[in-house]
Amino acid sequence: MIFLQDNVLLKRDIKAEDIKPRLLGHWGTCPGLILVYSHLNYLIKQQNLDMLYVVGPGHGAPALLASLWLEGSLGKFYPEYSKDKDGLHNLISTFSTSAGLPSHINAETPGAIHEGGELGYALSVSFGAVMDRPNLIVACVVGDGEAETGPTATSWHAIKYIDPAESGAVLPILHLNGFKISERTIFGCMDNKELVCLFTGYGYQVRIVEDVDNIDCGLHSSFVWAVGEIHKIQKAARSGKPIFKPRWPMVILRTPKGWTGPKELHGQFIEGSFHSHQVPLPNAKEDDEERQALQEWLSSYKPEELFTDAGDVIDEIKSTIPSDDKKLGMRPEVYKGYVAPDLPDWRQFCVDKGDQFSAMKAIGKYIDQVFVQNHHSVRLFSPDELESNKLSDALQHTGRNFQWDEFSNAKGGRVIEVLSEHLCQGFMQGYTLTGRVGMFPSYESFLGIVHTMMVQYAKFAKLAKETTWRGDVSSINYIETSTWARQEHNGFSHQNPSFIGAVLNLKPYAARVYLPPDANTFLTTLHHCLKSTNYINLMVGSKQPTPVYLSPEEAESHCRAGASIFKFCSTENGIRPDVVLVGIGVEVMFEVVAAAALLRKRCPELRVRVVNVTDLFVVENEGTHPHALKDEAFNNLFTEDRPIHFNYHGYASELKSLLFGRPRLDRVSINGYAEEGSTTTPFDMMLVNEVSRYHVAKAAVMGGAKWNERVKIRGQELTSEFDKDITETRKYIIANRKDRDDTYDMPSFDSSM
Amino acid sequence: MIFLQDNVLLKRDIKAEDIKPRLLGHWGTCPGLILVYSHLNYLIKQQNLDMLYVVGPGHGAPALLASLWLEGSLGKFYPEYSKDKDGLHNLISTFSTSAGLPSHINAETPGAIHEGGELGYALSVSFGAVMDRPNLIVACVVGDGEAETGPTATSWHAIKYIDPAESGAVLPILHLNGFKISERTIFGCMDNKELVCLFTGYGYQVRIVEDVDNIDCGLHSSFVWAVGEIHKIQKAARSGKPIFKPRWPMVILRTPKGWTGPKELHGQFIEGSFHSHQVPLPNAKEDDEERQALQEWLSSYKPEELFTDAGDVIDEIKSTIPSDDKKLGMRPEVYKGYVAPDLPDWRQFCVDKGDQFSAMKAIGKYIDQVFVQNHHSVRLFSPDELESNKLSDALQHTGRNFQWDEFSNAKGGRVIEVLSEHLCQGFMQGYTLTGRVGMFPSYESFLGIVHTMMVQYAKFAKLAKETTWRGDVSSINYIETSTWARQEHNGFSHQNPSFIGAVLNLKPYAARVYLPPDANTFLTTLHHCLKSTNYINLMVGSKQPTPVYLSPEEAESHCRAGASIFKFCSTENGIRPDVVLVGIGVEVMFEVVAAAALLRKRCPELRVRVVNVTDLFVVENEGTHPHALKDEAFNNLFTEDRPIHFNYHGYASELKSLLFGRPRLDRVSINGYAEEGSTTTPFDMMLVNEVSRYHVAKAAVMGGAKWNERVKIRGQELTSEFDKDITETRKYIIANRKDRDDTYDMPSFDSSM
Repeated sequence: MIFLQDNVLLKRDIKAEDIKPRLLGHWGTCPGLILVYSHLNYLIKQQNLDMLYVVGPGHGAPALLASLWLEGSLGKFYPEYSKDKDGLHNLISTFSTSAGLPSHINAETPGAIHEGGELGYALSVSFGAVMDRPNLIVACVVGDGEAETGPTATSWHAIKYIDPAESGAVLPILHLNGFKISERTIFGCMDNKELVCLFTGYGYQVRIVEDVDNIDCGLHSSFVWAVGEIHKIQKAARSGKPIFKPRWPMVILRTPKGWTGPKELHGQFIEGSFHSHQVPLPNAKEDDEERQALQEWLSSYKPEELFTDAGDVIDEIKSTIPSDDKKLGMRPEVYKGYVAPDLPDWRQFCVDKGDQFSAMKAIGKYIDQVFVQNHHSVRLFSPDELESNKLSDALQHTGRNFQWDEFSNAKGGRVIEVLSEHLCQGFMQGYTLTGRVGMFPSYESFLGIVHTMMVQYAKFAKLAKETTWRGDVSSINYIETSTWARQEHNGFSHQNPSFIGAVLNLKPYAARVYLPPDANTFLTTLHHCLKSTNYINLMVGSKQPTPVYLSPEEAESHCRAGASIFKFCSTENGIRPDVVLVGIGVEVMFEVVAAAALLRKRCPELRVRVVNVTDLFVVENEGTHPHALKDEAFNNLFTEDRPIHFNYHGYASELKSLLFGRPRLDRVSINGYAEEGSTTTPFDMMLVNEVSRYHVAKAAVMGGAKWNERVKIRGQELTSEFDKDITETRKYIIANRKDRDDTYDMPSFDSSM
Repeated sequence: MIFLQDNVLLKRDIKAEDIKPRLLGHWGTCPGLILVYSHLNYLIKQQNLDMLYVVGPGHGAPALLASLWLEGSLGKFYPEYSKDKDGLHNLISTFSTSAGLPSHINAETPGAIHEGGELGYALSVSFGAVMDRPNLIVACVVGDGEAETGPTATSWHAIKYIDPAESGAVLPILHLNGFKISERTIFGCMDNKELVCLFTGYGYQVRIVEDVDNIDCGLHSSFVWAVGEIHKIQKAARSGKPIFKPRWPMVILRTPKGWTGPKELHGQFIEGSFHSHQVPLPNAKEDDEERQALQEWLSSYKPEELFTDAGDVIDEIKSTIPSDDKKLGMRPEVYKGYVAPDLPDWRQFCVDKGDQFSAMKAIGKYIDQVFVQNHHSVRLFSPDELESNKLSDALQHTGRNFQWDEFSNAKGGRVIEVLSEHLCQGFMQGYTLTGRVGMFPSYESFLGIVHTMMVQYAKFAKLAKETTWRGDVSSINYIETSTWARQEHNGFSHQNPSFIGAVLNLKPYAARVYLPPDANTFLTTLHHCLKSTNYINLMVGSKQPTPVYLSPEEAESHCRAGASIFKFCSTENGIRPDVVLVGIGVEVMFEVVAAAALLRKRCPELRVRVVNVTDLFVVENEGTHPHALKDEAFNNLFTEDRPIHFNYHGYASELKSLLFGRPRLDRVSINGYAEEGSTTTPFDMMLVNEVSRYHVAKAAVMGGAKWNERVKIRGQELTSEFDKDITETRKYIIANRKDRDDTYDMPSFDSSM
C-alpha cells in the first residue's frame, strides 16, 4: 500500500511505473499490528468471543486496512474495496492519496473507535468501551512511543475502575519495537525485569512474547492464557465471590521494527532499526537497487500462494476469519450501538423562582434519577469529587466505581472519580463511541487539560458524520463548575475559562456552548444535552446558591430562544432602551441585574434593557452557526443602534470573534475574565476583572449618554460615582477581608417603572 | 493560619472574636509538608547541602509559609512578616484573605518554583531545575492526588534523562495520606508490595517511612540514605565510571491526613480521614464545642514553650535552621539566577534571498552554535525527534541526553527527546525558573497538549513580575512546526493551530506570537526570543523548503516593524491600492504572493498591496498590546478604507478578536484554518481550507471591485474563473494524487508594473 499503484498481486516484476510518485506511510509498526489482528481473528473464531481492536499507533492504518479488506469489512462499507482484484487494486493504489483512505486510522476505518493521532489515549478509550459490556474484550495495542506519554502512563491504573461483574475487559498489548523515528524509546530500553516489576506494580500479570522464531505459538498461547484469566476474574465476580485486587492479564510483545521488511539497504540495517519507521525503500521508483529490494521483499510473502486468480484470498486463510457478527470490522457497538437514554422529566427537579439555589445541587438530583432509569448506559466521569462540585446527590442510588479499596466494597457504580482529566475523557470517549451516554463535570480551569484531546474527538466525530455507514452517537457532555467567578480560596491557578474557546473553534454543527444563568435553566439545558446526539456540549454554571430568575416554563422558553430580555429588571420591560446590558454566565449576569437596580436608583432617566444569553452561539454572526440569530432577530433583541455592553464569563476575545461581522460593532463594549485576582473574595473577583455591577453601570451610563440627553448631562458625575464605588468597595474588602453582607441579596424591582 | 485573626500565640483562651469570619485553607496535607521541611533543614545543616523544596500539593501553602516565616525568609522579602510577634500576627491574621498571602503556593512564596495549582507537574519541574546544576538536590513532594495524573505518572521516568555527571538530583517523596477530598486515592489503596514493585520498575530504590511513632528517626535515616545514594551515583559518574541504569533513591511517606489535628468531632473521625482535608473545625467561631476542640488542638503544640516573649522561636529550634545562603527560602537560583545567554550572530546562518530553504534547517545550525557557546545553560526539550522537524543540525556538537540505552553511551547532551509534551514543558519550566534558557520545538497540533500547563506557568510568571524581589527569567520559547499547512500524510488528527489562541489570551505584556514568513525572518525572530526575558514566545514556521523573500537586513527591519508591505509583489510597490492582501504564516503567505502574480496576469488593472504580518500582535486594536500598531500606523499599512483580505495560518476567530475595535471592520475578510482536509496534498490543504491563491485572488477581485470601476465590470467573470480554478485543481489533484508540478515555483514579478 505504501509503494504500489499497479501490479498489486505481483503478477510480474515490479516496474518503475508500478510505484507511486509519492511514497507515504509508516511501515515500522505494521507487521506487529497485522500479527495481532490475525491472532485475534483466530482466537475469536476458536472461542466465539466478542472483541474490538483498538490500535494506539494510528499511523499503522495499512495494517488495519489490509486486515479489514481481507475479512470483507472494508468491502461491506466501501463497495469500491470489494474482496477481489479490483477492490485490492483500488485499496492499494489510492492509499494515502487524495483519492483513497488515509494513512491514519480514523472514523472511516471500520471497527475503529480511536484515531491514534495524538498519542496517549488508546488504553483509556478501550476501558471506556468495555464498561457495562460484560462480554466485550477490547484488545488494545500500545506502542512504545505512546507508552511514554503521561495519559498512557496513568491509564494502566484503569483496571482499578473496572467492576468485573458488570463490565468487560481490556487486554493490553504493549508492543515494543524499540524505536520512535530515530531515537530509542524508554520502554524499548527497559529490560524484562524492569517491565515485569512496573506492570506488576500497576496490578497486572505480565506475559512477555519475544521469541520471534516461535512467535505464533507464543502469542497464541499467551492470548489463550489472557482470555482464561479474564474469564476467571469475571466468573468469580459474577458468582458473587469477587477476587479483591484481581490481577488482570497483559501481554508485552517485542518484535523487530519493520519486521519481515528489507533487512538492509546501502549497507545500513533497516529491519529492527528506526530506518523502517516510515518508508524503508524511499527511492524505489528511481533506484534499481531499491526496486529490486522491494521486489524481493514483497515476493517473499508469496502472494501467488495466498490469492486466488480472482484476487480473493485462499480458503485456508478464510478459515481463520470469524463470522460476520464477530468480525473486528463489523461489530455493531462501533457503528450502530446508540440507544437514546430514558430521561426523567427535568421539571420535577426545578426550584422555586425567587429562591437562591445551587445549579449543581439541582442537577445532582436529576442525574441521580437519570442513573436510576438507565442502569447500564449512562455514566459520569470526573477528575474532581462530586462532593467538591456540589453534585453528590448523584450518588444517592449509585456508588463510586473504585475497586482497589478493600473497605469500600464498591459493587459497580455509575460514577468514576479519578484525578486525571485524561482518563475521564478517554473513558467518556470509549463509552460514548460504543453507544452509551457520558457526562464529565469538572472544575472549569482544569477542563482545558483535555483541550486537544477533545479536539481529536471532534475530528473523529466529524469524519464519522461524513461516512455513510456510521450511525448517531450521544453527544459528549461537559459540565464546568467551580469557576473563576466563585473561586473562593483556590486562587489564581484555578482560573481559566479557556475551554469555551476550544469548543468555539470546532465545526459549527457540532459545537454547543451554554451558560445557563440559574438552576432551572441549567436543568433544562442538561436535559436537552443528554438527549442530543453528535455534539460537543459544554455547560458552564455555578455550584454556589444563586438567584433563580425563571420558572420552569420561563426557563424552557428562554433556553429554547437561546437569549431573551429579562423584563423584570429592564426599564418598562425593556422597550425603547437607551442602552442594552447583556449578561452571559451566572455571576456576571447577577452583576448585570444588580447594575440595573443601581441605575434605577441613581439614574432613573436611563432606559435599560437587560438581556441574558444562555446559548453562546446565538450572538455569532449570521450564517455560520445554526443557532446564530439572523441580523433581524439580533436587532430585535439588542436593538439596531443602541450601545450594547456585554458582561461575559469567558475571555472577551471569544465574544469579539463571535460578534465579528455583525453590523455596527462600534456600539459594543465587552468585559470578561481578564486574568486578574489571586485569593480574594467573590465580589473582589468581579471588581478586579472589571465585571462588577459598578463597571456595568458605568458602561451603561457612558453608552446611554449618547442617546439620552438627560443622562449625558449627569454622565460625568455618575461615572465618577461608580469609580468611587469601585475604589471604596475594594478598600472595604481588603480592610474587612470579606464582601459586604448584602452583596448577594437579590435586588427588588418595581416593574411599573 | 486557617483559624485565627488574633491571639496568635495563644496567650489566652481562644474567643469567638479571635476566629476569622471565613475559614479557608487546606489542613490535611500540611503536617506532612512541615515535617519534611523541618527534616530538610536539619539535613542541609548537617551535610551542608544545596537544596530546593518543590511541593506538589500547592494548597499546602500554610505549611510553607509557616516554615518560611520561621527561618526568616518571609521577613527578608516581606518586612511586614518579620520574625516577631507583629510579623506572626500579620501572617496568621491575613492569610488567605484579600489582605494577605494566598492559600496556594505561588510566585509570591519565597523559594518556590512551582505553584501546584493544576496538579501533575511538580516532579518534571524539579527535574528541570537540577539539570546542569550538579550540586543541587530538589526534594519534591508528590501527593497521592497528584500521583493519579498522567503527567506525574510519566514523570517518574525523568531519571532516565538525568546525567549524574553534569546534573544534580531529585529526591522524590511520595506523600500518601490516603484521601483526596472524600474519595480514597489510587496510591493510598496500593499496598507496600504494589508500591515497591511499581517504583522499582520505574528504576528507583524505594524506602517506605510509615511508622508514625518513630517518624523522625525513620524519615531522617531515609533522607541520609537517599543523599548517600545520590552522592554515590554522582561520584561514580563524575569519576568517569558511570553506573549504568543507576537506581536513584525515593522515599514513600505515609502519614495520616490531618495528622496531629483534632481526632474526632461530633462522633466522626477527623485525623486520618477526608474530614481533615480543608477546615477540620468549620464552625469554630460559632460552636463552643468546636472552639474548645480548636483550643485543645492548638495548645497541644505548646506555643508557650516554642516562642520567646518577643514572638521569635526559641534557640533550640533556631539551631536546626541552615545559614542564609542555604535556606530553602533564600536560594539564589530561585529569584536571581538568570544569566543572559551568549548568542552567536544570527546573520551568519542566513540563506540567500530568492532561494528555497527550510526555516527549521536554518535555525538548526544556529541552535547548534548556541549550544556550543552555552555549554551548561541552554537546553532543548522536544516531544518529537529533531529529525522529524528538520532540526537535526542542532545535534552536530551535542547529543540526546537519554541515559537508559546501553548502546548510546549518552554523556550529557543539550537535547531531550521524550514523547511527552508534559515532561518537556515541566523540564523547561524548572530549567527556566532557575535562571537558564529553554526551547520547546513541537509539531504544531500537539503543543496544545500543554495549553493549560503553559497558562499555569504564565500565571506564575505574572505574579513573579508583581513581586518586588524576583529578578528576570528567560522567556520560554516555543517553536511550532510540522504545521497543518504541510501535514503531508499525517492527516486530520495532526492539524490544530489552537496554541496561538492560548497565547493570545495571556496578559499582553507577556504574550508574543510570531509567524515569520521565511528562513531569514525565522532566524532573527529566534535570536530575538532567546535573548528576551519574561515572555511566552511562540514562533510558528515550516520545516519544508519555502521561498526566502528577504535578505538578512530586510528580514531584520521587517521583524522589527512586525509587519510591512512586500513591495516586490505589490502593484507599483503598493501605492494607492484598490485592495490589501495580507498573509500571516508561511504557506498562506506564499499563496498571497501567488495570488498577486495571478492577478497581475489576469486582472492587471487591480492595484494590489501585499502585506506580511510576522508579529501577530501588531494587528490588535490600539491600546492593548505593546506591539499593537496605533490606528495611524495601521492605516498607513493597511490603508484607511480599502478592503483588506487576511490569509491567516490560524483560526480566523483569533484574528477577529484581535482586530475587534479597529475602525471600519466591514472592509475586512479573513480566511484561516477551517478544520478541513484529511490525508491529501499540500496544495489541496490550501484549497479545502479556502486559503489558496485562487481564494485570495477571488477575495481581492470582490474587494477591489468596490473601488475600481474597471475591475467591477469584469468582477463576475473573474470570480467565476477563480471558482473554476478551484474546482479544476481539486479534480486534478484527486485524479493525479499530486499537486501540479509548478505549484511551488516562486512567481516572478515585474517591479515596473
